Amino acid sequence: MKVQVCIIGGGPSGLMLSQLLHLQGIDTIILEKSSRDYVLSRIRAGVLEHGFAELMREAQCGERMDREGEIHHGFYIAHDGKLDRVDLHKYSGGNSVMVYGQTELTRDLYEARDKLGGKVVHNAADVTPHDIASDKPYVTYRSGDEVIRVDCDYIIGADGFHGVSRKSIPHDRLKEFERVYPFGWLGVLSRTKPVSPELIYAKHERGFALCSLRSQVLSRYYVQVPLTDKVEDWSDDAFWEELKRRLPAEVAAKLITGPSIEKSIAPLRSFVAEPMRYGRLFLAGDAAHIVPPTGARGLNSAASDIYYLYHALLDHYKKGDDTGIDGYSQRALARIWKAQRFSWWMTTLLHRFPDRLSYDDRLQDTELAYLFSSEAAQRSLAENYVGLPF
Amino acid sequence: MKVQVCIIGGGPSGLMLSQLLHLQGIDTIILEKSSRDYVLSRIRAGVLEHGFAELMREAQCGERMDREGEIHHGFYIAHDGKLDRVDLHKYSGGNSVMVYGQTELTRDLYEARDKLGGKVVHNAADVTPHDIASDKPYVTYRSGDEVIRVDCDYIIGADGFHGVSRKSIPHDRLKEFERVYPFGWLGVLSRTKPVSPELIYAKHERGFALCSLRSQVLSRYYVQVPLTDKVEDWSDDAFWEELKRRLPAEVAAKLITGPSIEKSIAPLRSFVAEPMRYGRLFLAGDAAHIVPPTGARGLNSAASDIYYLYHALLDHYKKGDDTGIDGYSQRALARIWKAQRFSWWMTTLLHRFPDRLSYDDRLQDTELAYLFSSEAAQRSLAENYVGLPF
Repeated sequence: MKVQVCIIGGGPSGLMLSQLLHLQGIDTIILEKSSRDYVLSRIRAGVLEHGFAELMREAQCGERMDREGEIHHGFYIAHDGKLDRVDLHKYSGGNSVMVYGQTELTRDLYEARDKLGGKVVHNAADVTPHDIASDKPYVTYRSGDEVIRVDCDYIIGADGFHGVSRKSIPHDRLKEFERVYPFGWLGVLSRTKPVSPELIYAKHERGFALCSLRSQVLSRYYVQVPLTDKVEDWSDDAFWEELKRRLPAEVAAKLITGPSIEKSIAPLRSFVAEPMRYGRLFLAGDAAHIVPPTGARGLNSAASDIYYLYHALLDHYKKGDDTGIDGYSQRALARIWKAQRFSWWMTTLLHRFPDRLSYDDRLQDTELAYLFSSEAAQRSLAENYVGLPF
Repeated sequence: MKVQVCIIGGGPSGLMLSQLLHLQGIDTIILEKSSRDYVLSRIRAGVLEHGFAELMREAQCGERMDREGEIHHGFYIAHDGKLDRVDLHKYSGGNSVMVYGQTELTRDLYEARDKLGGKVVHNAADVTPHDIASDKPYVTYRSGDEVIRVDCDYIIGADGFHGVSRKSIPHDRLKEFERVYPFGWLGVLSRTKPVSPELIYAKHERGFALCSLRSQVLSRYYVQVPLTDKVEDWSDDAFWEELKRRLPAEVAAKLITGPSIEKSIAPLRSFVAEPMRYGRLFLAGDAAHIVPPTGARGLNSAASDIYYLYHALLDHYKKGDDTGIDGYSQRALARIWKAQRFSWWMTTLLHRFPDRLSYDDRLQDTELAYLFSSEAAQRSLAENYVGLPF
């Protein structure tokens, strides 16, 4: 088989790029190792930055998002028993974020791909990129007993942190940067009315908590837990009790609890691999970088990679201009590192860090006090949260 | 002897407060353990924030400062071989800083005190506050064989980090917060024309450097050194060589070198003691808090303490209103911690930190890249550098 662009990974990044390129007449295939049901069962991010929503519309996949998603003009930070609001709309010069579950947007992208007859291979086993440093790369995968070869001009590695793409780059050509945090997030999804129409990030001496949502009937809550905790240690009741303790009384009193329909613990990690291109292989999204979820940069970071790749490939195929191809890694990393910085900052602002200097605890309190005393500081937060320009 | 306010310490804080109170008819004495020549021989800060300069004028000591001091509307950050300018004037809404040596302003304050006949005792030995938790506190000191007692309403501890004032507060009533940095500053003062009319803060892989000045004929340069270095290890030639290596080529080429007239190594430390009041004793300046010199907050932090104390004492004596007295510690600490935050941030932004994650080195590069890509970030820097409102 021969295509122009072979995309490894059928998550939102791969689907979005495939859809955008297809609309411009560029031929792609997506190789996804899991089933569609599995991909759609993953509970992930729910806050889309301004530019991501725009990209969904450009991919002609924005209709349901615009109908069912919720525009949020701000969020709250709870601390010292009170609620302070960050006015994203005011301080970002009129931008906002869209709350729309990753599951939903992935579904929309699949439907759009189906409608255009896009090639999406599920349950593709042993996906392997070959000759990526040559100008004739190809990818093989197995379907049952058959090994299928896909010849292509370019390979996009959008197969997540554990995928094969990054691992295909020679070790000595890749530099990895990592920071692990001494805690995780215990998350609960419940079919209850969210306690607040806007997100509440809570800083508390017992640890961080977050009141998020997927829709007006689907709530997503988190509490910071030690890395040694297991999901089994946490009954639903224990979770709700702990969550309430970390919220201001006025919020806790309004919290509607219910059975968890999903409960899991995720460690918090920052990770970047450089460069994001090796030969004809381009990394995108989690394959190249991970952020802690504070600040909602995960999915949104992937979106900027896709934006740069889309335009780079368009310039290559339509204008014979390889500037975008050659500059991809540097351009993508410049924005990725800013998202890393912001995620680190928000994580550091709001979590309890065990075993550190009491001086640093006071600095953390001061960062928050300064934030709400300074228009410049709130503008900086807002521009990062709604998404820096591509 | 009986005065209304007894001030321990004849540095700029004590002198300024004494002068301001005297002008309002409030009787003070200053007890300084060193000679005037010794106090005036100390080489200290040179960058005064907007509000500090205003306070000098209010104390009727601003004449020479306004004549000889230099208004700086910005400074440079050198990194990656280039110079980026921070436009303080533009981004702080029209404010600026004043470059005027601490030695000079201390001299001006002494002259003003002399002119008004202010009581300033030098070489006061064994200064000791007594009964500070009572409403009849007093201070004793020794002059030769004579022990002199000063009865007063209030005691101001403006006697620096090593002074007796903070140590007079019972241990169990004081909480101390400290952070030490794994490096120091080697500073050289030379009678040479400064390499740049505005300060240059340089971030370099060999370590931080700073091109500062006291006047157009007196330069002050620094390089970051390990804490294990001794001044004797550094010849003038070695210093100039190292400084040049850390500056962009265009700057290094213009550097005029000369013999050092002062050379010393200072460790970098952050320190805060809470509360800043115990009974009738009020701490001010270095007696209660220390910042690393990056960001020029040291002397300026002292100024806000003096501002709050001045108004608190004025309200007490003129209106019988003790709100300012009772709120002093909380009010002063709120601003002090913001200065601590900013000093920590600028120190972290610009220095080389040995033995840390390469991830954190990249975050540091990104902080700088973000700063110069964001108006909000530059506004935040500027408002802190020129001084947050009192």
